[in-house]
Amino acid sequence: MSLEQDFLEHVRNIHRFTAIQGHLGWDQETQMPKKGARARGDILAWLATQSHQLLTDSEFGRMLDELEGQDLAPSLNANVREMRRKYDEAIKLPSEFISEFTKVRSGALVAWQDARSKSDFSLFAPHLKAIIDLTRQKIDYLGFEHTPYDVLLDEYERDMKVSDYDPLFAGLKARLVPLLKAIMDSGVKPLALPGELSFSIEDQISFCRKVSTKMGFDFDGGKMDVSTHPFCAGLWSGDTRFLYAVMHESGHGLYEQGLPLEHELTPLGQAVSLGVHESQSRLWENQIGRTSAFWEIALPWFKQLFPQIPNWTAADLNLIANEVKPDFIRVEADEVTYNLHVMIRYEIEKKIFNQDLEVEDIPQAWNQMFSDWFGLEVPSDEMGCLQDIHWSMGAFGYFPTYTLGNLYSAQLLESMAEDLGPIDEIIESGDWSSMLEWLGGKIHAKGSLLSPSELIEQATGSAPSPDAYLKYVEEKYSRLYGL
Amino acid sequence: MSLEQDFLEHVRNIHRFTAIQGHLGWDQETQMPKKGARARGDILAWLATQSHQLLTDSEFGRMLDELEGQDLAPSLNANVREMRRKYDEAIKLPSEFISEFTKVRSGALVAWQDARSKSDFSLFAPHLKAIIDLTRQKIDYLGFEHTPYDVLLDEYERDMKVSDYDPLFAGLKARLVPLLKAIMDSGVKPLALPGELSFSIEDQISFCRKVSTKMGFDFDGGKMDVSTHPFCAGLWSGDTRFLYAVMHESGHGLYEQGLPLEHELTPLGQAVSLGVHESQSRLWENQIGRTSAFWEIALPWFKQLFPQIPNWTAADLNLIANEVKPDFIRVEADEVTYNLHVMIRYEIEKKIFNQDLEVEDIPQAWNQMFSDWFGLEVPSDEMGCLQDIHWSMGAFGYFPTYTLGNLYSAQLLESMAEDLGPIDEIIESGDWSSMLEWLGGKIHAKGSLLSPSELIEQATGSAPSPDAYLKYVEEKYSRLYGL
Repeated sequence: MSLEQDFLEHVRNIHRFTAIQGHLGWDQETQMPKKGARARGDILAWLATQSHQLLTDSEFGRMLDELEGQDLAPSLNANVREMRRKYDEAIKLPSEFISEFTKVRSGALVAWQDARSKSDFSLFAPHLKAIIDLTRQKIDYLGFEHTPYDVLLDEYERDMKVSDYDPLFAGLKARLVPLLKAIMDSGVKPLALPGELSFSIEDQISFCRKVSTKMGFDFDGGKMDVSTHPFCAGLWSGDTRFLYAVMHESGHGLYEQGLPLEHELTPLGQAVSLGVHESQSRLWENQIGRTSAFWEIALPWFKQLFPQIPNWTAADLNLIANEVKPDFIRVEADEVTYNLHVMIRYEIEKKIFNQDLEVEDIPQAWNQMFSDWFGLEVPSDEMGCLQDIHWSMGAFGYFPTYTLGNLYSAQLLESMAEDLGPIDEIIESGDWSSMLEWLGGKIHAKGSLLSPSELIEQATGSAPSPDAYLKYVEEKYSRLYGL
Repeated sequence: MSLEQDFLEHVRNIHRFTAIQGHLGWDQETQMPKKGARARGDILAWLATQSHQLLTDSEFGRMLDELEGQDLAPSLNANVREMRRKYDEAIKLPSEFISEFTKVRSGALVAWQDARSKSDFSLFAPHLKAIIDLTRQKIDYLGFEHTPYDVLLDEYERDMKVSDYDPLFAGLKARLVPLLKAIMDSGVKPLALPGELSFSIEDQISFCRKVSTKMGFDFDGGKMDVSTHPFCAGLWSGDTRFLYAVMHESGHGLYEQGLPLEHELTPLGQAVSLGVHESQSRLWENQIGRTSAFWEIALPWFKQLFPQIPNWTAADLNLIANEVKPDFIRVEADEVTYNLHVMIRYEIEKKIFNQDLEVEDIPQAWNQMFSDWFGLEVPSDEMGCLQDIHWSMGAFGYFPTYTLGNLYSAQLLESMAEDLGPIDEIIESGDWSSMLEWLGGKIHAKGSLLSPSELIEQATGSAPSPDAYLKYVEEKYSRLYGL
């Protein structure tokens, strides 16, 4: 075999181990019985060690050195560049550390589920402490230039640091808080839903499958499960969460289905970043799904399945779907308050890693900030700092990528409209293939060829920026709430 | 590390790979979307190659040699013995063969699902042919003493050959066929079920969970899914399959939950054989579940959930649960006809590997035998040779272990009654813990310490034999059908 073939086969073997870890992790969250935790933790730790050993293999290091001295085709060059980043990071981490960290995370996941269901932070605290200690150790191994938290942020979105996020969030806050106040003061209220309406899960699924299929999601290559996630509560038990959760997840799924298959099991065949991933889900969920145009086309499908609904118009449904209301749970938040939820997590994480906030002080810090920003008192940790799974998985630095996804999605929508014409007309036509094709060509098919910011710049002509997003929310909500 | 530690860690690594294969195989059957097949085939083939490489590592061979020269504790001795068998077999098979076989099987599984749903054998035939060719190649690699099929039989139940099964099946057939005829001629019929009865899936699950919990199944350490398996059709849509499928699977699950945890990821911590595994499921399903005593205790639980049922007695329900009726589908067969279904598969497999039956002639051979033995014409391949998943997984030689399970279960029931007193009384008491404890001590906790036949002999005082089973079915069905 040639050097290139040897290198790619080695890369695929590393990715096979991580693909299996990913699958078993998904299974652990969705399928696994509780007592499987210990054995699952053991096997995940073993897999992590195996892939770490392959990645840090000195022979693999030599391959990288040798390839870097050559003139490479762009796709091979991208794979070498990405693997070099991973290699340089991995050789700083001892194999035992990887195994230990993975095991601790598995145990923490189960403890978090238990703590959340009992709304008792103290059950989770020792696990969280262990994870934070190990994360600090990891930061020590990797080293940092400006602040410790930077190391974590960079892991989830390349080249993003506290010095990038701080002004970004400040700018968002400066305009979102007044917008929120104006909406609250407008007196506009969506229609109240009749309390007696109830729709069968089967019919809800059938409606959501229709929307998802229209989006271009291939159900032979993906699946939709009824899970115990809160959005199962219902399409109309006071909200539309079920539908939008499906559009959101389908947006993620379309990205995955559109990645370049010829590069599978190499970095080039993977999604480039969490921020870009989130931009795909948000664009379908919010910019396409939460519009009057969407309800113009979807209302007849909806009425066919649910003939018992009142005589709602597309505008009524759109206002229901865009109700703005400060509340406790991030995943249920509207577009105006969502980024404030992210900021709370960002501020807490920054305090943990840059200012040594103690674990036991997290609930108090959370609740204080929530009260200051939302004017609401958090009634229980389940509604506060225990609501998200991320910390139990050691995913510090992850949350800000949700906000990046919102920003990117607005930039992409603007460019898409420049290329395809008014998006509302496309949505109303019911043929959404041109939008998927546009996203496919600009984003999905690129895999990890470019860096996230290069990709956004190439797709939209502008570097990542909050301007498009702020323009989008201010216009949309001013219109909806008559501001 | 000592030699023993090195050896056990190597063994555990092999088992980690096979445990992941097992998990991804389960997922492939139950969760995976259709288009996942190619990538899944690739990863399963890769895992198979990895574990094969570890197993055939010459260093591992040297460890085995060295350990065999020492005086070992019984548990280590059992692990060395089992790994020696696997090693000696594996070194005869080239790594590329293992990878190829695994990949072909993955494709065949999807083709079989498709062919079965369309009842079109021709869609499956080329895949089946490829699997049979590879299996013949495998027999060539491994070599055989008497007949080629022996190699396959031995793989699923150690030391069982055509020369063992032929007389066993002949003996069963000689007594089951007249029993079946007598039952058919008896004129006794179970109560017809009112057509309008229908029970919600949720209530059915809740009833089955109650029974399963009574059996001692730990739902924190296992799960019960609603699957697309035919038994989901319903608890009483003319049958009781749902309940008995749950008791059957719980029986398997209790064996797994009772295996010696301290030997996990080594042979000693695994179930000893398919036949013994099936004895556990059959014992709970048939010898415990399909009895009047069971319905005496379960009828009140049942009535509580389903108050709309007619005024059935325990005896009525027991007769419904034990209706004997020649029919097409093995997994729905009663205790009297079940082993005849197994024999058809055994005879076909014997013809394929010992007499070179061609793939295209399988449906005809199947249907002819079915007509001769059951007096029924198979209406479609879906009801005939396409009904079982096994061949698509290359599992030739597997079916006869179902019959062994039936035989072992009757032997175990006899011994259990000698030790614990009348089983009916225990069942009716509603406290079944003594039965689980007995099975736990005699079977579950032993893992693979002994060979299957040694285990049965140690547990029951007799070598494996069909006598107990024939006595059991003849007495039970004579009583039920007034023969």
